[in-house]
Amino acid sequence: MDGAVVIVDQTALPHELRRLRLTDVDGLVDGIRRLAVRGAPALGAAGALGVLLAVRQGRREGWTDDEVVNAIDRIRSARPTAVNLAWGVDRVASRLDEGDDAVEREARAVLEEDAAANLAIACRGADLLLELCARAPGRDDAGEALGLRLHTHCNAGALACVEWGTALGVVRALHERGAVARVYADETRPLLQGSRLTAWELDRMGADYRLVIDGAAPSLIARGLVDAVVVGADRIAANGDVANKIGTYPLGLAAHRAGVPFVVAAPESTVDPATPEGSRIEIEDRGRDEVVAWHGRSVAPAGARAINPAFDVTPADLVTAIVTEHRIVRPAAGERPA
Amino acid sequence: MDGAVVIVDQTALPHELRRLRLTDVDGLVDGIRRLAVRGAPALGAAGALGVLLAVRQGRREGWTDDEVVNAIDRIRSARPTAVNLAWGVDRVASRLDEGDDAVEREARAVLEEDAAANLAIACRGADLLLELCARAPGRDDAGEALGLRLHTHCNAGALACVEWGTALGVVRALHERGAVARVYADETRPLLQGSRLTAWELDRMGADYRLVIDGAAPSLIARGLVDAVVVGADRIAANGDVANKIGTYPLGLAAHRAGVPFVVAAPESTVDPATPEGSRIEIEDRGRDEVVAWHGRSVAPAGARAINPAFDVTPADLVTAIVTEHRIVRPAAGERPA
Repeated sequence: MDGAVVIVDQTALPHELRRLRLTDVDGLVDGIRRLAVRGAPALGAAGALGVLLAVRQGRREGWTDDEVVNAIDRIRSARPTAVNLAWGVDRVASRLDEGDDAVEREARAVLEEDAAANLAIACRGADLLLELCARAPGRDDAGEALGLRLHTHCNAGALACVEWGTALGVVRALHERGAVARVYADETRPLLQGSRLTAWELDRMGADYRLVIDGAAPSLIARGLVDAVVVGADRIAANGDVANKIGTYPLGLAAHRAGVPFVVAAPESTVDPATPEGSRIEIEDRGRDEVVAWHGRSVAPAGARAINPAFDVTPADLVTAIVTEHRIVRPAAGERPA
Repeated sequence: MDGAVVIVDQTALPHELRRLRLTDVDGLVDGIRRLAVRGAPALGAAGALGVLLAVRQGRREGWTDDEVVNAIDRIRSARPTAVNLAWGVDRVASRLDEGDDAVEREARAVLEEDAAANLAIACRGADLLLELCARAPGRDDAGEALGLRLHTHCNAGALACVEWGTALGVVRALHERGAVARVYADETRPLLQGSRLTAWELDRMGADYRLVIDGAAPSLIARGLVDAVVVGADRIAANGDVANKIGTYPLGLAAHRAGVPFVVAAPESTVDPATPEGSRIEIEDRGRDEVVAWHGRSVAPAGARAINPAFDVTPADLVTAIVTEHRIVRPAAGERPA
């Protein structure tokens, strides 16, 4: 590592695969805030690398220890809801006293562990979905795709993680086993991570997918078109309440009513034992601009105000299972992740 | 009437109040298909006026009776789900044998009755909501707005009707009584009728409103920010299942779970005794273009496919009340509208 963090600028997809080379803390904080880097595991990695970036920049520019700590705090608080960001920062920052090499080793360990955790989540989640759903993989005699019809929201794929992805990693693992008939992906307003990122990943993996507007998802589930919902998580409370991208909760409601499994795929670092339940999770409001305009073009009356929460909370009783790299927790059956 | 139908082109709002003067059947069918005219009651009026338009154009251009009937059929089937369009057409077409004056009288009667029905719905709906919700109108000692916090979807306002509107007519009636603290309006993807039309109407009536993305609405309800949901309807089955703009069903799920009233405001003509239940309602799919691009700018990978249903069905057990110009029906309590 030469002191720079290189990330895919997710705001440029699906039309351009642009890489950002970040060499200072301001650039990283800006990238996190405008969602050039996003997704819980990727934010954990960004937090980990961010500490290393702050240490390197501090050396280069002769910062005091306090200035380094302040810079690290700014990274830590760039987005309030995602627990992984703070987790990645804290884990690497705990090595500050041991010297720069220890900081770099810890940051690298976070990345390697994240990649390994994603793979474990993907395999365990794929096994679980095949067990929960009674549909066979492969093709029938007429060549029609059998397998699962999955619904996902936002992007919990490779772009949101270091490799593979969580929810979309599960989809990928099933797809590689020939066990996916179709994936429905919510477009995920306001920033369209579904249309831009998940569709791009599904396209590259060769899956049969359909985009739908967020408001349509619950009725597709009610109409019997979906065998299981699989999503990521930004923070999981001790009781199993799940904070995830805004628009996840209606999927939980619809899946519950339809008797369809609602599965959350997320690393252990997303579980926050310090948060007893979802109502205690601070919900970031991202302001009106993302709602009232599109690519700078106003779609609402001048001066229109908006509420723009970035996350919602799906209560534990709607969550069939949480799949992590270590275990399966079944909140709807009364199990608690912490 | 000089033989033309004048409508507000709803696709030009909120930035421009543009009127379309339609003098032939092709123009009207096109306007209905591209949603320049939309909303169940407005479609009923368009169907009624459309028959008159076909008769006038037929006289002008020397059509045979069969050609007039064919033109009327094209208007009737311009959009499949909205029962009011066919209702308006059929009612006026039943006068064809009685001469042009009888056709014109019937078309005018449809418009006048629609305006009167909207007013009756608005007043009855306002009374019902004040009865269902325990919040007081007016302002408290500190000048803070009391009154109801309402959530609505799509546009069931004056633009969707001949005057006043149905769901938004209820909001307007409450607002005129000083009984509205705030209105949350879903943007309503894919065509943003909430951001463009409902916000424009709320802005003009001086209501305190906030736009939200469709996926955020259920969590706002769960967080206790909403006292009641009030929406329109495109078709109501005999058992009380309600077909309305896609994205309505998640509001029904969320309101039910939160114990918040879910009220449907619609004219009697929306009730379709010939449809026993919601699963029998044909759901129009409007194709991929509205989902994968914005103002011609692609937001998804090239070739991305989409499912784009125009409506969803909220089951009767989630519908607290249906308010029409004649009565209140309570499907969740087991009452049937037909």
